[in-house]
Amino acid sequence: MVSINSSRLLADLDHLRRIGGMGTGVVRPAFSDKDMEARLWLKEQFEFAGLTSTIDGVGNVFGRSKNDGPALLIGSHSDTQPEGGWLDGALGVIYGLEIVRAFQEDASTENLAIDAVSWQDEEGNFLSCLGSRSWCGILDDDIEKGCVSREGETLEAALKRTGLIDTPRLTVDEERYRGYLEAHIEQGNYLEDAGEKIGVVTAIVGIRGLTVLFEGEQNHAGTTTMARRRDAATAMFEMAYRINQEFPPVVNNRTVWTIGNAVIEPGAASIVPGRAELTVQFRDQDETLLNKLEQIVSSIANDINSRSVIKVQVVPSRAPIRPCNMHEEFIMKMGGAAELVVPGGWREMPSAAGHDPMVINEKLPCGMLFIPSIDGVSHNFKEDSHEEDIVIGCQVLADAAEAILK
Amino acid sequence: MVSINSSRLLADLDHLRRIGGMGTGVVRPAFSDKDMEARLWLKEQFEFAGLTSTIDGVGNVFGRSKNDGPALLIGSHSDTQPEGGWLDGALGVIYGLEIVRAFQEDASTENLAIDAVSWQDEEGNFLSCLGSRSWCGILDDDIEKGCVSREGETLEAALKRTGLIDTPRLTVDEERYRGYLEAHIEQGNYLEDAGEKIGVVTAIVGIRGLTVLFEGEQNHAGTTTMARRRDAATAMFEMAYRINQEFPPVVNNRTVWTIGNAVIEPGAASIVPGRAELTVQFRDQDETLLNKLEQIVSSIANDINSRSVIKVQVVPSRAPIRPCNMHEEFIMKMGGAAELVVPGGWREMPSAAGHDPMVINEKLPCGMLFIPSIDGVSHNFKEDSHEEDIVIGCQVLADAAEAILK
Repeated sequence: MVSINSSRLLADLDHLRRIGGMGTGVVRPAFSDKDMEARLWLKEQFEFAGLTSTIDGVGNVFGRSKNDGPALLIGSHSDTQPEGGWLDGALGVIYGLEIVRAFQEDASTENLAIDAVSWQDEEGNFLSCLGSRSWCGILDDDIEKGCVSREGETLEAALKRTGLIDTPRLTVDEERYRGYLEAHIEQGNYLEDAGEKIGVVTAIVGIRGLTVLFEGEQNHAGTTTMARRRDAATAMFEMAYRINQEFPPVVNNRTVWTIGNAVIEPGAASIVPGRAELTVQFRDQDETLLNKLEQIVSSIANDINSRSVIKVQVVPSRAPIRPCNMHEEFIMKMGGAAELVVPGGWREMPSAAGHDPMVINEKLPCGMLFIPSIDGVSHNFKEDSHEEDIVIGCQVLADAAEAILK
Repeated sequence: MVSINSSRLLADLDHLRRIGGMGTGVVRPAFSDKDMEARLWLKEQFEFAGLTSTIDGVGNVFGRSKNDGPALLIGSHSDTQPEGGWLDGALGVIYGLEIVRAFQEDASTENLAIDAVSWQDEEGNFLSCLGSRSWCGILDDDIEKGCVSREGETLEAALKRTGLIDTPRLTVDEERYRGYLEAHIEQGNYLEDAGEKIGVVTAIVGIRGLTVLFEGEQNHAGTTTMARRRDAATAMFEMAYRINQEFPPVVNNRTVWTIGNAVIEPGAASIVPGRAELTVQFRDQDETLLNKLEQIVSSIANDINSRSVIKVQVVPSRAPIRPCNMHEEFIMKMGGAAELVVPGGWREMPSAAGHDPMVINEKLPCGMLFIPSIDGVSHNFKEDSHEEDIVIGCQVLADAAEAILK
């Protein structure tokens, strides 16, 4: 079996961390100077590892094995949040690089094809999963024209500035690939709390976002009797409270829901609120459950509407993200590999955060693996994982890749 | 018995309405040019009515009867909200003027002493009830120094601009007065809904304002399990919902409470709220009940605190206004007068809004009378009352004054 080189793995992660490093964190948003510097460095590493390397027209860095397929593509993204952690994305990219090298160094795997990748803009500086969308051929022209970075730069301007505007964009060769594998930090605390080392991702959860609008009548808080009031906020509070009462009996222990904002208008102590708005979001890997939760919100709204005092309206606040299942065989092979390296120290689990496989899944079978996050911290300079866990994760992913390709 | 002159009353109200008139409403905030113009006109009318008239050093307009006391002071305020109605304040001022004249025209009352007044800045452009506070000798120097108008002018600058800065301020001569009477539009809809013409005010309600602060932990809305969350908004929704459940069994049908604002931080769809804040206000004429309501809020806070997930804190958001009882004898005399003019068409009721008698009550017995507001509209250009009701109110107040002084 292949054996990864842990000091080389950690050294490369450390090198990448320094490009855009700031304190313990990293500032390397997509198409920033530091992001492009990192991509050039990665291209070079892919070449040193014997791959044919390219930065394509949207900034994806590919390293293609000279071996024939069936190949596995392994990677993640090297762009970061505006104040990102050092492992979010980078971990999976360097795992890909290290697994390529480990396979070449072992006679039993040197003829297998592992390609490496760093996707562009998973974090959505311009558009979330920009790179993988482009590669999968599902980046809509109109959407691309509307892409503007947090700093207000258009995507077209960024592509001109970085000299990529005339570079061809690569797209998936479905014939070549058995599938795509990605490792990532958990960004949560399930593994750490359980003292486990590996999470084999079963699915990336779906997300629904709803805005609930309440319309009543603005009035004087002294002279308007309770009986005559049409207080939009009172209906909003009832909705929020009932969501928190009625969701628990139907959810599972991984479902999450969040009422992240509430706005009352005009929002003054002495005025009976005339309008209110509630922001509701819920996530689960089971689409049937998501439907059920949406129905609960609608039925509370209907109940309040039926009293004819406050008019309630439920509207989607975002395009729903459908739950995305990982490939059954990859789940099994990853579980098998994890059981050999950390017997009893792993679990199957859904991913509560979004990742490139949500896009790539449209074209290729996907598998994902998590390693523990210290304190579950993510999207934060303080994000970290133990070195031991970083090494274990890479070995498990390498073993799984070997099992899949052999 | 005295008889008021209804066409003279309505003509004077109409004249005053035109000073600062805008559409159906009036823009005459305290110390504005239009406000000062109205005060000069009132001073003149008080003189025409045989009173000795003065504008004092804070802008109060007094008309003093040449008759010896015991006197009744009758009036209200002639300043308006930034977008005020034509009767809010003006009604009670012109009632005072008309009652002075009616008393002089009747042999049986011509020797009684009725003084008239228009207080300055009841509506709080610089400081609510500025004029009556000054007259009662309870206008604190430090508070006065901090007075700034909505437009950012200091009170001192306004007094210089209007030439009042060196004019003496008058203060109450408690020996002279039997008490103070004020008529006002109801600003609510009790009288109109009941088809009644007169409200005899029993008390001006007390007001308590509370801010409830919730402190939890901000977190990722995807990866933080429900069990691990410390969601400040969830506790806030519970508090709001329980207030709306637990208040009704202990209040009376005139108590009002309002949750006028709610703020969630950071207020994003995908972030578990770390902080939240609720604005709670309640009003009643019974201080014991106000205490009980405040205790309910505290006990819900204690309950939530006892779970040790969210830290809840209840703090006053304003200086409490204590309920202010009207003078028992004045209530009886006003009721008697109302019963003669509109038999069965009046009621005793508290005032849900604040008025100068809350201040004057510290020095003199006070009585207040309401006439119906069309649709209960107030602090709005659309504010209005029927002419017939305006006339009835003035006659009832005149009759009550006669009964008190005889």
